[in-house]
Amino acid sequence: MTAKPAPQPMLPPPDGKALLASLIHPGEVARLSPQELAALAAELRRVIIEQCSAGGGHLAPSLGVVDLTLALFKTFDLDQDRLIWDVGHQAYAHKLLTGRAERFHTLRGLGGVSGFPRLSESPYDHFGVGHASTSISAALGMALARDLSGGTHEVVAVIGDGSMTSGLAYEGLNQAGGMGSKMVVVLNDNEMSISKNVGALSNFLSRKLSRPAPQRFKREFESWLAGIPRIGKDLAMFARRSEDSLKSFFTPGMLFEAFRFTYVGPVDGHDIAAMSEVFEQTKGMDKPVLVHVLTKKGKGYDPAETNPTFFHGVGRFEPETGLAPPVLGGGPKSYTEVFGESLCRLADTNPKIVAITAAMPEGTGTDCFRVRHPERFVDVGICEPHAVTFAAGLATRGYTPAVAIYSTFLQRSYDQVVHDVCLQGLSVKFFLDRAGLVGEDGATHHGVFDIAYLRHVPGLTFMAPKDEAELAQMVATAFATPGPVAVRYPRGVGVGADIPAAPDPLPLGQGELLRDGTDAVIVALGSRVYPALECAQELEAVHGLSVAVFNARFIKPLPEAQLLELAGRFPRMLTAEEGCLAGGFGAAVLELFADRGALSGLTVRRVGIPDLFIEHGKAKELRALAGVDTAGIKKAALELMGRG
Amino acid sequence: MTAKPAPQPMLPPPDGKALLASLIHPGEVARLSPQELAALAAELRRVIIEQCSAGGGHLAPSLGVVDLTLALFKTFDLDQDRLIWDVGHQAYAHKLLTGRAERFHTLRGLGGVSGFPRLSESPYDHFGVGHASTSISAALGMALARDLSGGTHEVVAVIGDGSMTSGLAYEGLNQAGGMGSKMVVVLNDNEMSISKNVGALSNFLSRKLSRPAPQRFKREFESWLAGIPRIGKDLAMFARRSEDSLKSFFTPGMLFEAFRFTYVGPVDGHDIAAMSEVFEQTKGMDKPVLVHVLTKKGKGYDPAETNPTFFHGVGRFEPETGLAPPVLGGGPKSYTEVFGESLCRLADTNPKIVAITAAMPEGTGTDCFRVRHPERFVDVGICEPHAVTFAAGLATRGYTPAVAIYSTFLQRSYDQVVHDVCLQGLSVKFFLDRAGLVGEDGATHHGVFDIAYLRHVPGLTFMAPKDEAELAQMVATAFATPGPVAVRYPRGVGVGADIPAAPDPLPLGQGELLRDGTDAVIVALGSRVYPALECAQELEAVHGLSVAVFNARFIKPLPEAQLLELAGRFPRMLTAEEGCLAGGFGAAVLELFADRGALSGLTVRRVGIPDLFIEHGKAKELRALAGVDTAGIKKAALELMGRG
Repeated sequence: MTAKPAPQPMLPPPDGKALLASLIHPGEVARLSPQELAALAAELRRVIIEQCSAGGGHLAPSLGVVDLTLALFKTFDLDQDRLIWDVGHQAYAHKLLTGRAERFHTLRGLGGVSGFPRLSESPYDHFGVGHASTSISAALGMALARDLSGGTHEVVAVIGDGSMTSGLAYEGLNQAGGMGSKMVVVLNDNEMSISKNVGALSNFLSRKLSRPAPQRFKREFESWLAGIPRIGKDLAMFARRSEDSLKSFFTPGMLFEAFRFTYVGPVDGHDIAAMSEVFEQTKGMDKPVLVHVLTKKGKGYDPAETNPTFFHGVGRFEPETGLAPPVLGGGPKSYTEVFGESLCRLADTNPKIVAITAAMPEGTGTDCFRVRHPERFVDVGICEPHAVTFAAGLATRGYTPAVAIYSTFLQRSYDQVVHDVCLQGLSVKFFLDRAGLVGEDGATHHGVFDIAYLRHVPGLTFMAPKDEAELAQMVATAFATPGPVAVRYPRGVGVGADIPAAPDPLPLGQGELLRDGTDAVIVALGSRVYPALECAQELEAVHGLSVAVFNARFIKPLPEAQLLELAGRFPRMLTAEEGCLAGGFGAAVLELFADRGALSGLTVRRVGIPDLFIEHGKAKELRALAGVDTAGIKKAALELMGRG
Repeated sequence: MTAKPAPQPMLPPPDGKALLASLIHPGEVARLSPQELAALAAELRRVIIEQCSAGGGHLAPSLGVVDLTLALFKTFDLDQDRLIWDVGHQAYAHKLLTGRAERFHTLRGLGGVSGFPRLSESPYDHFGVGHASTSISAALGMALARDLSGGTHEVVAVIGDGSMTSGLAYEGLNQAGGMGSKMVVVLNDNEMSISKNVGALSNFLSRKLSRPAPQRFKREFESWLAGIPRIGKDLAMFARRSEDSLKSFFTPGMLFEAFRFTYVGPVDGHDIAAMSEVFEQTKGMDKPVLVHVLTKKGKGYDPAETNPTFFHGVGRFEPETGLAPPVLGGGPKSYTEVFGESLCRLADTNPKIVAITAAMPEGTGTDCFRVRHPERFVDVGICEPHAVTFAAGLATRGYTPAVAIYSTFLQRSYDQVVHDVCLQGLSVKFFLDRAGLVGEDGATHHGVFDIAYLRHVPGLTFMAPKDEAELAQMVATAFATPGPVAVRYPRGVGVGADIPAAPDPLPLGQGELLRDGTDAVIVALGSRVYPALECAQELEAVHGLSVAVFNARFIKPLPEAQLLELAGRFPRMLTAEEGCLAGGFGAAVLELFADRGALSGLTVRRVGIPDLFIEHGKAKELRALAGVDTAGIKKAALELMGRG
């Protein structure tokens, strides 16, 4: 609450990297003077801005916690204490201060520094993250481990107010308070998740700044006290009135106190000295403590402070101006855009469509729906389980919710998809963006399991488009098909296909033969259809092989008749999908053939994601590594035909 | 708060079913006199006790809300308003009052009345349930649907305090408060989930009864007011002190107010008139309202009031005494018991084992662990996602958590298993009780998807024992194997196998050939091994066929070499599992053969759960219907061998 920082120029001063480079051990932060800490903060911000402007990354979250990071490093003994970052996209300063400054230019690249904390990357990364809201639960586990071992070190979880909308964070808080273990939860409150934060709690937390001044406070209390009934009146009535009066004095601190946390704050999250003092105090407390820290997302870089949503996770930009490189006109639209536009268009004439996002209006392309049909747009916050059950409730009353959640985050709603939607046969439509390998966000974010975790759910219709035009058709198909439907599509831009203005629904369980042949057939799904076609062309041109390509379109119901017909004509079949092989689309094809007695005489090989977690890097590089790009399909096809 | 009910005899008076039978429409409850309502409550209790004593069921939860149900039926228009029961095991009175009294004797039986509300069973069942904590989210969806349609009816969710430990309930509450939709949440507070409720919130809710008396309250406030500093003192310090003082006056009502709910209560949940009055008041409110109702689980039946955990979900018992039929000595132990004992024994010598349950100490057999190693036993409440991430945190610090969660409920933790445990390769051991068809609890509770939702997760070891002795070996194997391990086993008793005192770990990825043959091989998993053996014996005795039986033991890693060897010897193979066919164990076997080029020439058929939701009934009946019992396996085997 002291020493206001000076106004920031557009970029922090270019003091070189002298200070950062001089730190051998993270503990040395504790020895820096206030002036040196301020200089180090500026230097960290500059390095982060430079790296993100050159290679993209989670700029605004990481800028927002530079000062908080320094205060934590100044106070805690990082060799003994455990510091756990929720989500982890804000941990760039942490990475720079824990031995990863020299390699920081490799951030998010293949073989480079991960964009998130990882157990395997550093002894100072105590828990691998990527998905939100795990930090309190994980920290509580570490606290119990410490207590069972007779240790005395600190366990500190840093969690954003956006992550607090998730039930997992609440479950951790409730259990931590119940157990009473010594731990510190730092609530990094910037009033944002990726977009503006939502929900009752976020409204409530914002009360922190409107606490009444002492004089008014006292006057109101005295007037209220005067109204207290004398003994003899009805207790219940009295209690009700007392509560009504007390409510206006109720603060965020008392909320956390209800969870048996000791609350400290709010503290200025850009005042390193003030935060260090508070953290120092928490060390003596043998119970759960919540420190409420107020930060500004994007702090120290004007463009990011002004537009923190754009700069949350950003691609390359010009650091001096904050402008992204000009987009050359006429490039293909992204799948996200095509989905958003298709959904909006359908909603224009179908008043029963409701769009639901879990804190990702921009990421899922539903931001245009928010503008065009605001009354039918719901951002529930980071709570995918609730998003799905809420949608189920809507569907029982004749509405058709479009639940737009990334493939990797819908993992959080698996039970709700099974138990609340499909078991009841409700008409909820799921749109899984970022299905397949997503690239730089890496292992925590790849959407490679959705086929395996959704395919077995009875009653679900499940599709994957070969291009953005087929996506538009599948969005139409989803709303023309009764019951639950899911569509998965990849991150990034399409192939440049013309989007039909009024796409017709596709026939259910029907694929399309895109190219005939005589030597073998590739049964390809979604993003693997064009690479399969390329592969077939190369096989013909280079090897003189005649390979058919079938676009399956449907994971469920499978195009059974067409697949059986193909199996009858082609004893050699290759399946290709951008999803895990175990239990995936190729497995469904094998099941069909086994069940129909069509296996015998067939040779079937499968291309897909092998049974391991794929790391970060460019999507193209990762597809090559996983063997699911055109070259990988070609290699498998040649092996299938005895030319491998 | 008026008209205390008279003390209850052991059983409510046998007044016949005159009143219940006379009600044609649920709306008629509104016309009953207080005396008739009391008589109807007694009659409902008697019917529920009689039915549960004869056929088992969720007795204590349903007895606890008989009066609440009548108050809701008295106040709300059930043809217009939507009444949503959380979990739904407490909805027996609701069922009896909505046209299901005559069929109530079929409760939980094949083709009979379901143990839970179901959309398809009655127009008064507005949301199908079974898993906890969905009601607020679903009700909010219905409230939005009403608002979009210009409706004015009420939406009422009834949720227990146990269900409030789940993050899903919190997510619903947070969003409901944020949206400000008109809805009523009835908090049915009996201080229990199945066992005693846990967590900070439950401690906090119990404050409701310790509100200070008016005089003391006023005195304390005046003394506190006197200490308020004059203007000029530091505001932050003042605010901190005010909060400390106010905290002791902070009530559950204020907690819900923080979520922007209007709080009413607490109300006596056995006083129909008092509750009706409160519900009547809520009708005029155009915002979210929480009514806090205090009930006694098992109310009106002494044995259930005394031992609500035993009578939560109970088998047959003697209604006059509350005693279960005497168990004849020497019957086989249940899988649950064998797991619990095996885990305890290992924990006796391994101080790093921690047992974690999600509100199911008795159901998972970890209650003995609670007694023997209380410091290493954690009941987290109904929050399966947190249970797994908490376990992951423990595992990062060298502990080995045993997470014991039913197969159906671990569906809630799918993302945490993937993202927090397996991606980090952490040594968390999962024990999935109630895998396969569970019987009377029906579609919401069958554990038939676990193989499909876990098999594709990289790095997981996954087993299923053929009997209780092998379960003991697999518990030992789990702790002898690095990294994440899961074991699935069925509900109910074992086959009577001798449990080894100190079981050796099994060799990883190795099954056992139990019986050789010449005509075909059955590759059986877990609970299907003994039926496969029986089937082979019958095929030999009746049909003169020689069929081998292989116990696979491992879903992952598959016993690859053994399976390939069998495929080489037997061109006809049948797989048998008690799990969904899509993406299941049989699919894994097909994948192996395809990947190793071993398909051609093989005929493989699969026995397992078909692609639909299986209803309630006796497990034996359901296994027959699904075609996974001995007869079903035999039929498939005969078809495989051309004798079908």
